[in-house]
Amino acid sequence: MERKSIVIVGLGLIGGSMALALQGFEDYEIVGVDVSQPTLRFASEHSVADRICADAGTVIPEADLTILALHPRGIVRFLSEHRDHFKTGSLVIDVCGIKTAIMEGAKVLPDSVDFIGCHPMAGTEFSGIEHAFRELFQGSHLILTPRPESTQDHLDLLERLAAYLGCQDVFRTTPEAHDAMIAYTSQIMHIIAVSVCDDPNLFSCKGFEGSSFRGCTRVAALDVGLWTELFSMNTPALLEVLDRLMENLTAYRDTLAGADPQKLAEKLSYSAARKRQMNLQGPDLLA
Amino acid sequence: MERKSIVIVGLGLIGGSMALALQGFEDYEIVGVDVSQPTLRFASEHSVADRICADAGTVIPEADLTILALHPRGIVRFLSEHRDHFKTGSLVIDVCGIKTAIMEGAKVLPDSVDFIGCHPMAGTEFSGIEHAFRELFQGSHLILTPRPESTQDHLDLLERLAAYLGCQDVFRTTPEAHDAMIAYTSQIMHIIAVSVCDDPNLFSCKGFEGSSFRGCTRVAALDVGLWTELFSMNTPALLEVLDRLMENLTAYRDTLAGADPQKLAEKLSYSAARKRQMNLQGPDLLA
Repeated sequence: MERKSIVIVGLGLIGGSMALALQGFEDYEIVGVDVSQPTLRFASEHSVADRICADAGTVIPEADLTILALHPRGIVRFLSEHRDHFKTGSLVIDVCGIKTAIMEGAKVLPDSVDFIGCHPMAGTEFSGIEHAFRELFQGSHLILTPRPESTQDHLDLLERLAAYLGCQDVFRTTPEAHDAMIAYTSQIMHIIAVSVCDDPNLFSCKGFEGSSFRGCTRVAALDVGLWTELFSMNTPALLEVLDRLMENLTAYRDTLAGADPQKLAEKLSYSAARKRQMNLQGPDLLA
Repeated sequence: MERKSIVIVGLGLIGGSMALALQGFEDYEIVGVDVSQPTLRFASEHSVADRICADAGTVIPEADLTILALHPRGIVRFLSEHRDHFKTGSLVIDVCGIKTAIMEGAKVLPDSVDFIGCHPMAGTEFSGIEHAFRELFQGSHLILTPRPESTQDHLDLLERLAAYLGCQDVFRTTPEAHDAMIAYTSQIMHIIAVSVCDDPNLFSCKGFEGSSFRGCTRVAALDVGLWTELFSMNTPALLEVLDRLMENLTAYRDTLAGADPQKLAEKLSYSAARKRQMNLQGPDLLA
């Protein structure tokens, strides 16, 4: 009997880290695919996957699980080009940061191939295989947007895979709810970070920054191609969140300008209590 | 000959961490002062300082260095109340987040007592002695706002003290420049964090957040009393920074709404390149 296989298409930060982290998962062979020669060479030299290859077409027909770790438009294109090459009964997932457009793109697949949208809430401000590391997903959330007809077997597989990656939990939602939520938890964080870095004082402030500045601006050094796609493919949701943020900033501006310490204290108490109630746990908290 | 002493007034997160971190510094005895009985008990039980006491008046007349680790208005009040109790030739410093108002308050001191404003760029979102830890200052910047007449001996002492705390460097600036810069690097980060937490989706987004969200919102769980004072005592500088941020966010809003991926990519490239050029190193980066 042939060995089961997981094919990861795209060995960047996320795909590369996933390849590293999935080695040894059950009895699956982990096959890494990329079109870039330097990436393939790096992947081979560092044993990023059990097997490395340049041609997706030769390995996805045998894959029990195909993980598309490309940029969003690349995923949609790949699904369209390879719609007839996936193994019957197999599962295809993506791992990018938007879901509505991806689930729409996955409609080109034949009924015999299952597709589940996947978004591991993990990343760094770096991209490329040279920054991949197997601990990337530890403590992070994994979000799934299954189809109504996705099988329990496939959902179970992703639960076990998430546990093996070290994710703290797995959530399921709809693509639309995912995109609305991610506009708030992730996309607007990047818009804030780049906007803070557009300040004329950016360079002169060096030496005056602490962990709050580093924490807020870290992600400004983003992958421009990737984030242009993520923002462009989720603009309405992002604009809604951005407008709400501007309203909340304006409310603080008005309170500050009002110069009434009692009112300012009340407003800060409200926000700080909300944050404490949320009580987020994550691998990257300072204390 | 009597042992030299450093008196730390206020054993909260910063004062407590400093007391812990300064034990063993040269031949100084580290004396911790607080007015709260639970804090004094905790400090004694955990050997936060070499000696703990409740009455500043009994120890500051002997102190070679007095560190005021109180809230800003508490510092100004303490300086006024104890103006005649400090040892002749000694140095008094504060460690709070604003400097103009503090340097102004320090003018009540007699000429025989030196005062240097101090701001260690370190902290967490927690307050109180139970969160103090000796590693808090490691890798952080220490900013000094000396008087023109501050002595070289006192500046040298603070350089050695910073090295002992593990600070990565020491900067000197004017109180006004400090406050303008800190409005950008620290205060606005807190206004952003609380504004993000005012979003109605805060609680429903749990499970969808990653390190960018945690990094940006961490400091929203702030000490309301402290930050009300810091914001209130630096409002004009803070409003200037906030207005610039709103302009930069609006520019991103316009570009996103314009739905031209090429223009968005150009704008993101500009901001991301600035962030990369800044290349901040700190103890809390993800990778």
